[in-house]
Amino acid sequence: MSPPATSLLVMTRADGRSDDELRQITITRNWLDHAAGSVLVEFGRTRVLCAASASEGVPRWRKGSGLGWVTAEYAMLPASTNTRSDRESVKGRIGGRTHEISRLIGRSLRAVVDYQALGENTIQLDCDVLQADGGTRTAAITGAYVALADAVAHLRSTGALKGEPLTGSVAAVSVGIIDGVPRLDLPYEEDVRAETDMNIVMTGDGKFIEVQGTAEGAAFDRAELDALLALGEKGCADLTRLQQNALGVSVVE
Amino acid sequence: MSPPATSLLVMTRADGRSDDELRQITITRNWLDHAAGSVLVEFGRTRVLCAASASEGVPRWRKGSGLGWVTAEYAMLPASTNTRSDRESVKGRIGGRTHEISRLIGRSLRAVVDYQALGENTIQLDCDVLQADGGTRTAAITGAYVALADAVAHLRSTGALKGEPLTGSVAAVSVGIIDGVPRLDLPYEEDVRAETDMNIVMTGDGKFIEVQGTAEGAAFDRAELDALLALGEKGCADLTRLQQNALGVSVVE
Amino acid sequence: MSPPATSLLVMTRADGRSDDELRQITITRNWLDHAAGSVLVEFGRTRVLCAASASEGVPRWRKGSGLGWVTAEYAMLPASTNTRSDRESVKGRIGGRTHEISRLIGRSLRAVVDYQALGENTIQLDCDVLQADGGTRTAAITGAYVALADAVAHLRSTGALKGEPLTGSVAAVSVGIIDGVPRLDLPYEEDVRAETDMNIVMTGDGKFIEVQGTAEGAAFDRAELDALLALGEKGCADLTRLQQNALGVSVVE
Amino acid sequence: MSPPATSLLVMTRADGRSDDELRQITITRNWLDHAAGSVLVEFGRTRVLCAASASEGVPRWRKGSGLGWVTAEYAMLPASTNTRSDRESVKGRIGGRTHEISRLIGRSLRAVVDYQALGENTIQLDCDVLQADGGTRTAAITGAYVALADAVAHLRSTGALKGEPLTGSVAAVSVGIIDGVPRLDLPYEEDVRAETDMNIVMTGDGKFIEVQGTAEGAAFDRAELDALLALGEKGCADLTRLQQNALGVSVVE
Amino acid sequence: MSPPATSLLVMTRADGRSDDELRQITITRNWLDHAAGSVLVEFGRTRVLCAASASEGVPRWRKGSGLGWVTAEYAMLPASTNTRSDRESVKGRIGGRTHEISRLIGRSLRAVVDYQALGENTIQLDCDVLQADGGTRTAAITGAYVALADAVAHLRSTGALKGEPLTGSVAAVSVGIIDGVPRLDLPYEEDVRAETDMNIVMTGDGKFIEVQGTAEGAAFDRAELDALLALGEKGCADLTRLQQNALGVSVVE
Amino acid sequence: MSPPATSLLVMTRADGRSDDELRQITITRNWLDHAAGSVLVEFGRTRVLCAASASEGVPRWRKGSGLGWVTAEYAMLPASTNTRSDRESVKGRIGGRTHEISRLIGRSLRAVVDYQALGENTIQLDCDVLQADGGTRTAAITGAYVALADAVAHLRSTGALKGEPLTGSVAAVSVGIIDGVPRLDLPYEEDVRAETDMNIVMTGDGKFIEVQGTAEGAAFDRAELDALLALGEKGCADLTRLQQNALGVSVVE
Repeated sequence: MSPPATSLLVMTRADGRSDDELRQITITRNWLDHAAGSVLVEFGRTRVLCAASASEGVPRWRKGSGLGWVTAEYAMLPASTNTRSDRESVKGRIGGRTHEISRLIGRSLRAVVDYQALGENTIQLDCDVLQADGGTRTAAITGAYVALADAVAHLRSTGALKGEPLTGSVAAVSVGIIDGVPRLDLPYEEDVRAETDMNIVMTGDGKFIEVQGTAEGAAFDRAELDALLALGEKGCADLTRLQQNALGVSVVE
Repeated sequence: MSPPATSLLVMTRADGRSDDELRQITITRNWLDHAAGSVLVEFGRTRVLCAASASEGVPRWRKGSGLGWVTAEYAMLPASTNTRSDRESVKGRIGGRTHEISRLIGRSLRAVVDYQALGENTIQLDCDVLQADGGTRTAAITGAYVALADAVAHLRSTGALKGEPLTGSVAAVSVGIIDGVPRLDLPYEEDVRAETDMNIVMTGDGKFIEVQGTAEGAAFDRAELDALLALGEKGCADLTRLQQNALGVSVVE
Repeated sequence: MSPPATSLLVMTRADGRSDDELRQITITRNWLDHAAGSVLVEFGRTRVLCAASASEGVPRWRKGSGLGWVTAEYAMLPASTNTRSDRESVKGRIGGRTHEISRLIGRSLRAVVDYQALGENTIQLDCDVLQADGGTRTAAITGAYVALADAVAHLRSTGALKGEPLTGSVAAVSVGIIDGVPRLDLPYEEDVRAETDMNIVMTGDGKFIEVQGTAEGAAFDRAELDALLALGEKGCADLTRLQQNALGVSVVE
Repeated sequence: MSPPATSLLVMTRADGRSDDELRQITITRNWLDHAAGSVLVEFGRTRVLCAASASEGVPRWRKGSGLGWVTAEYAMLPASTNTRSDRESVKGRIGGRTHEISRLIGRSLRAVVDYQALGENTIQLDCDVLQADGGTRTAAITGAYVALADAVAHLRSTGALKGEPLTGSVAAVSVGIIDGVPRLDLPYEEDVRAETDMNIVMTGDGKFIEVQGTAEGAAFDRAELDALLALGEKGCADLTRLQQNALGVSVVE
Repeated sequence: MSPPATSLLVMTRADGRSDDELRQITITRNWLDHAAGSVLVEFGRTRVLCAASASEGVPRWRKGSGLGWVTAEYAMLPASTNTRSDRESVKGRIGGRTHEISRLIGRSLRAVVDYQALGENTIQLDCDVLQADGGTRTAAITGAYVALADAVAHLRSTGALKGEPLTGSVAAVSVGIIDGVPRLDLPYEEDVRAETDMNIVMTGDGKFIEVQGTAEGAAFDRAELDALLALGEKGCADLTRLQQNALGVSVVE
Repeated sequence: MSPPATSLLVMTRADGRSDDELRQITITRNWLDHAAGSVLVEFGRTRVLCAASASEGVPRWRKGSGLGWVTAEYAMLPASTNTRSDRESVKGRIGGRTHEISRLIGRSLRAVVDYQALGENTIQLDCDVLQADGGTRTAAITGAYVALADAVAHLRSTGALKGEPLTGSVAAVSVGIIDGVPRLDLPYEEDVRAETDMNIVMTGDGKFIEVQGTAEGAAFDRAELDALLALGEKGCADLTRLQQNALGVSVVE
């Protein structure tokens, strides 16, 4: 499966990236007029609209606790995929994959939230995939963090909270093994060919929030796992820098 | 923007438009990479993504008829409105308003489709409101027509059809009576204050496809109805020109 | 499309009516023993049972406002149509058409309700189609108004309200263009052949509450629209008289 | 609560019936124009519309068997009860009671159907309660049998079947113990007070199809059970005669 | 229909039981660690897990009444039947049969509950069929009573109630006529062949709570009904003894 | 938070296990009579019934491919948890967690299935949690593999397949960090206290199928991740031996 030595240069990816390189990442803040925070995030052709709606109060089971709440919902527009997929509202049920990703996004963001500092406010993240080309969940997490940061700033500006409810930043990226080679940030055409597929969510200071690796074809060994983790660490660090730039945070490296 | 004290005639609208003037209209074609046709249409701050997915074959009840089919679905993203609205997929049901608008869009487009010429192909229009500021259904129809025209051109280019399945164009606009004054293309803040609210869908050659007028406050008389119809005719004619420009059609007036 | 002069007599409708004539209309009050108001309304073979249930209190979002509420639900019995239709309760979903008509009936009645005078009472209209032969929604509105009037009288008799919450009466009729000829109050066999189909809801004093016109075949021009509006005005005026007779109101014309 | 000895004769029921007497029973055939058979059946104030829709063919699991199928659905209109009940189509679910009664009606009718003679035809019974005053399920079965007989005659008249698919007739009645006294055909006000409540479904020749007895208060002993069964046999025999009269069958007793 | 004298020995049942004999009955208490009461009940190969969960408080409609509540839910595991059945949670709807049996179990248990003595506590019975071989509903009732008794004892031990909320015991058994012979406690292979099928629920002191007889094939006459009732009385008395043994109650006969 | 040196021996777990020790594992095959394979698997007090139903044929989208299919559903009985949880069939929706675990089990088993060798047969795994005390998904996977192996053997014995569709075995275990200490196979009381929680699914020959790690409290660093992976490898190896023993496979180590 390894290429003959003479063709090494040809082994680049379809879009010309090196194996540990992210796609073109674009983070556009304030894409909507109403939401407390809103970001159109693009990982290559993957395009996700992340909106953070802030409201006073918390769900019933949390009332009077003095603690805030952050939650997330993920969905794909029907025409976002190569062949149109049916609308979940029309089917009357949310599919397992949608549920799973919504829960992942929520958990990932909550890992950097100090509920005490948030106070009894709720921030609801909506991540709607406008166009899907692989890595929608990791783009969603990466964009949602920026929308969340904007929503928190908005709440602070209105006096709804005082301190800093964010204890760090969050970014996420997919990695996978394609034709035996570990690669970063898979577009759809690589994703479907990957033997192993992993999504990694990390804090801005390099700790893991989620590690989800799946053998799509053959099971993977510990060496392959280690290679994927290293790639993921690299990708999340790159994304963290891009998030900070977008937010206008000066970063000391 | 506030009128001089002496000038009742200067009772212009919050956004400075005259009563028979459309908001800033933008029609961006090919907003998506996958769909056969896709349009981001903007009526002021109202922003609707209209995607046309084409597929060979027709629903079961139509098989073997030689006739095509065109259908539409409308939905709003949760954060598209002033205060976030719950996701219909999560509620497990499509609300009455959503149903009603989806049906209206489908009927409106089908009014200019020659099923025979379309052949046994199906075109599915998805109109997803990214941001809502009044007039989402009329923006959706206006944009969906352009996406439909692109999808038809796409089908022709792939040889899936030969003739011209579109017998005309379709545009739609809202009109209403605010403080006794008939106005064209209402943004949200006018819409909620309107005594009478009417949506008008017309062909490019000035015939009516749908007329839906509703007394929100007091019932309206025939003279008011006539005034609204005239405004609607004017607005649809303007929108038709903008659609033709977007499609690069040379129009002889 | 116009018939040769010699065949004019043959051009009458299948049921012998003239083009601007209603079908046989029957309004039977107090058809049920329990409901505050109940009417079996018949437009020819179309038969709709309209029941008005009155209850103290209003929905949660309206509590403490001092204002009442009126709402409506429409449904068809499975065997009401030519070929049996599936039961929506069994399908687990209300179809778009049902939703749309329920909303139309509710809006139409609310147009003549003074919520202040109604006080914090709720009147729920149930319009169940026992037999369908075209015009079920207009029969439902016409009958529901009478049931509503009876329910209001009932509430007054029990002391639940004092003033007059009804600011007028409401009637509705369908009109359409069949073979180029505008006709009033279409039965099913005309409805399916109509090029244009319009439902008109008016107050007893001749103002419009709803105008919903749809091109089923070709789009319609302004002259056709005007002809349909005139027919609708005539039909609603006739229905208003029949409602007043049924209610024993003396009408000065 | 026990009456003075001298007034025993006064112990009649609120509506003056003797304990083993049916309410006023009315069976109106052909109440609808479309259905193959349709009956408005009244047990006192209980009013159920029973419609039998016939269609060629059978459900998929029965295709090619040469056997027919009979099925039933029961539902209550929202305003049929003393206080309005929510519409099951709006709730999106059929309640347990509705399911249970639909199944009972279907089983009861199928007990007298010869599927071979019916051939691959389906008859669907819809029993919709227009007004409920106790005994709706037994009224439904009793009326549905007559509608079924009419539908069978209709199928025979159209040549869709030849022989006699009905092997007998079916009638049903409720019985109960109120204040220690067994009574026939309970209206709502007796039903809610009954210690024991039993529904009995029988063939026209006096055999049992269903016996469903429930202790609402205290459990009942064998003597009480026997008394209820005897009352039920009497009531079903009376109803059988009324069905035969309605169908114009001459009965030799 | 009776066999010739010489073949009497051959007429025994597939499992060698006499016609009025129960299958092997096993009642295992405390099968779960968490529930207030839990019983694995086995009627031959039919295996039902009955769990009683106790909680303080009652449903909203009963609050402040001083009365308790007992309710039940029945379900079958997908693989409990001969051929796997679909999961109702996946179908998104509870079937009619499930609803019906859940209601039957709840009613049966409530017949021996003194709500006043129970106080404002709720006991929820869950009866999950792990393996089905006929008679699952009667096994469920029989086992659920024992779990209920344990839950009541648990509530008493925690001081949540003082008196005795159980006014008696409950057992249930199925009976049927197979090849003309009445038989007790039918396994699946007899159940499907039964002409008449009856479920009988009785109190420990020999009174009836529920009698549900259904003609699966031909209708049954009064003599057959009497024979089935007698068999059911015998079977319930046997089950009552087994319940008391399981509960360690000394029974004086 | 680390204990003083002298008390190290006292730091054992509530159940006395060492940190890298599994709970008492029990694998009972053939727990049901009908299913092609069935296993009651116990990880301490966690008890999951895993049933494998085999059927000829595959889902529609796979017909004619010559390939088989394996799928799984997971569910919890209402009384399996400390406080009763609502039944998903009654709620009418499957929750996100249930969906997620069902998908995980299916993917894990499919990783060792050779579809070609399975032929057009479907095996459906049902994993129903009878009692939950942490680690239900890992117990389910571990037990489901054994049920799957039995179902495959069953299919081979009936001639439905010939070769060996299983390319290896699958086991799963949870690991977590509690009070800074990595531990294997967490019961509920450890699970709720875990800062990091990881589920690891591996093949019998020591490769990874799934790695799902989640920071419940603070994010975790690479060293912690490595420690958890090592623990998981150890646990899966132990479980593999227990599976092979249960299946009577002689294992050469």
